[in-house]
Amino acid sequence: MNKQLILTKRPVGLPDKDTWTLREEAIPTIKEGEVLIRQDYISLDPAMRGWMNEGKSYIPPVGIGEVMRSGSVGEVIESQHPDYQVGDYMTGWGGVQQYIATNGENWYKVDPSIAPLTTFMGTLGMPGMTAYFGILEVGKIKEGDIVLVSGAAGAVGSVVGQIAKIKGCHVVGIAGGPEKCKYIVEELGFDAAIDYKNEDLKSAVRKACPKGIDVYFDNVGGEMLDVALACLRMHARIAICGAISQYNNMQAVKGPSNYLSLLVNRATMEGFVVMDYSKKYMEAAMQMGSWMMEGKLKTKEDIFEGIENFHDTFLRLFNGEKLGKLILKVSEN
Amino acid sequence: MNKQLILTKRPVGLPDKDTWTLREEAIPTIKEGEVLIRQDYISLDPAMRGWMNEGKSYIPPVGIGEVMRSGSVGEVIESQHPDYQVGDYMTGWGGVQQYIATNGENWYKVDPSIAPLTTFMGTLGMPGMTAYFGILEVGKIKEGDIVLVSGAAGAVGSVVGQIAKIKGCHVVGIAGGPEKCKYIVEELGFDAAIDYKNEDLKSAVRKACPKGIDVYFDNVGGEMLDVALACLRMHARIAICGAISQYNNMQAVKGPSNYLSLLVNRATMEGFVVMDYSKKYMEAAMQMGSWMMEGKLKTKEDIFEGIENFHDTFLRLFNGEKLGKLILKVSEN
Repeated sequence: MNKQLILTKRPVGLPDKDTWTLREEAIPTIKEGEVLIRQDYISLDPAMRGWMNEGKSYIPPVGIGEVMRSGSVGEVIESQHPDYQVGDYMTGWGGVQQYIATNGENWYKVDPSIAPLTTFMGTLGMPGMTAYFGILEVGKIKEGDIVLVSGAAGAVGSVVGQIAKIKGCHVVGIAGGPEKCKYIVEELGFDAAIDYKNEDLKSAVRKACPKGIDVYFDNVGGEMLDVALACLRMHARIAICGAISQYNNMQAVKGPSNYLSLLVNRATMEGFVVMDYSKKYMEAAMQMGSWMMEGKLKTKEDIFEGIENFHDTFLRLFNGEKLGKLILKVSEN
Repeated sequence: MNKQLILTKRPVGLPDKDTWTLREEAIPTIKEGEVLIRQDYISLDPAMRGWMNEGKSYIPPVGIGEVMRSGSVGEVIESQHPDYQVGDYMTGWGGVQQYIATNGENWYKVDPSIAPLTTFMGTLGMPGMTAYFGILEVGKIKEGDIVLVSGAAGAVGSVVGQIAKIKGCHVVGIAGGPEKCKYIVEELGFDAAIDYKNEDLKSAVRKACPKGIDVYFDNVGGEMLDVALACLRMHARIAICGAISQYNNMQAVKGPSNYLSLLVNRATMEGFVVMDYSKKYMEAAMQMGSWMMEGKLKTKEDIFEGIENFHDTFLRLFNGEKLGKLILKVSEN
């Protein structure tokens, strides 16, 4: 049987247990030109919260009654497709379920001899691509820049900071709690860490970046974005990647009150969506793969188990109880 | 005697009459290398409100006890400077006073045969330069773009919209009241006008720009910025020129709640300060002068009289009781 997680309602605020139901269906049968994939891991990402809301966004929302959308990686166990063989590993948008039949569109083969399967949903997957294009093409970092990263111990922020270090920037990360702060400085090589749970954010940023910030990579929104705006240098760039602080908000989103700092500092705030760079994913994956081989780019996945634990695991995206890329093993192998 | 308007306190909210005092001093005597200018007109601009606040901005605040800063234009009536003769007209930062002695630094000669003196503080002065570089270099307009302009009947917005029309854009202006709306469509050639005092802003923008907005030129901030964000097209640009709705705010500035539209639409919000383009002022003035001669660029100044009427005239910047560039005649000729 194929266990699937179905979206049953649109949550207001933080999703509760009734937001989804687990359903069992027959494992799909494939047609000519299709493959059957046994999904080993699914990816949990803050963006999933946005896909659950009604209304226009960069992709359509998940429909009520549909399988919850997610990235995934798994093994081809049946094939009627000329390009894919049984035993191939593939990554794509398989959703929160154990099996999927697909014609291979928007799926990519991955080579588990290069990196563990889960890394293809982390640094070599969507979060890594988001970090890569966000900091290089939107942030336009150059040597000597002072770079501030929020969500710095997370799947995206940890890669953003390490790429900025590779490019010769001074990198300060914001993370929640002493363990994460220690991790980004001692293991990932950030120059400094700010613990937003235990420090006054504004004075900590001023202390860590006394000359101000050239580039702020924002995953968080809310107060952090306002503090960053207050500390910009001339011609600074803010890359808007997301706003995790606002995703479960029941009030209106908090707009950045300090946005006129853009005027004073001739600065730019630019949003981006990683899918726009899909033609260059391969180039980015090769570059990041080689940094990983050289030991310059470290990667960490936090893996939980069992599709029935999806809800509790999903909440870790927002309560901070994870380190690195959050992944759920859904196969029962 | 030289009548001068002195800043006597830092206002909270809208300045009251006690914010300034009128002082009389002896007309300054000039030294070798200086000229004495009799100031005919001074320029009233929303940015002046910002210069009255304590704190870091793009230029230092006006000091308490100092002459209120403003742009001005006047005639050289004494000269000990080799480059300037009695009878020359000059424009610069003369402040709200009737006479000034200067060595000519940051002053420019103007030719009153090209345009009325007051136009050198409007379309051929700072507001025109702001419009020109803001819409062309920050807004990066191209033919066919849908352009929304706030403060569209004002000194900056009216020029922004006309330049966008010259460049082949579809231009919608936001202004207050039927008279201004009629003026920007019938006299300035905007494609449509929205009367923010009498229309629901969001539905009016959606109606006037059913395909959305490519470029928003923002003088206003507040709700208008939020509505524009809600109506962006892909890869839209927002040029942040000012935020007149917020300058007299006694609460914190209202940040744009819809800023995540930047992400959804891969859009950019960029601040700018006209002084950064000073090396190209001459080029812009020549271009705009030639558009004026061809009748493509119209200009309007709203001129009031008497330095003792400064306070009441200044308030017109914020209550909307003016049309075009606001100017005060301060000489008693």
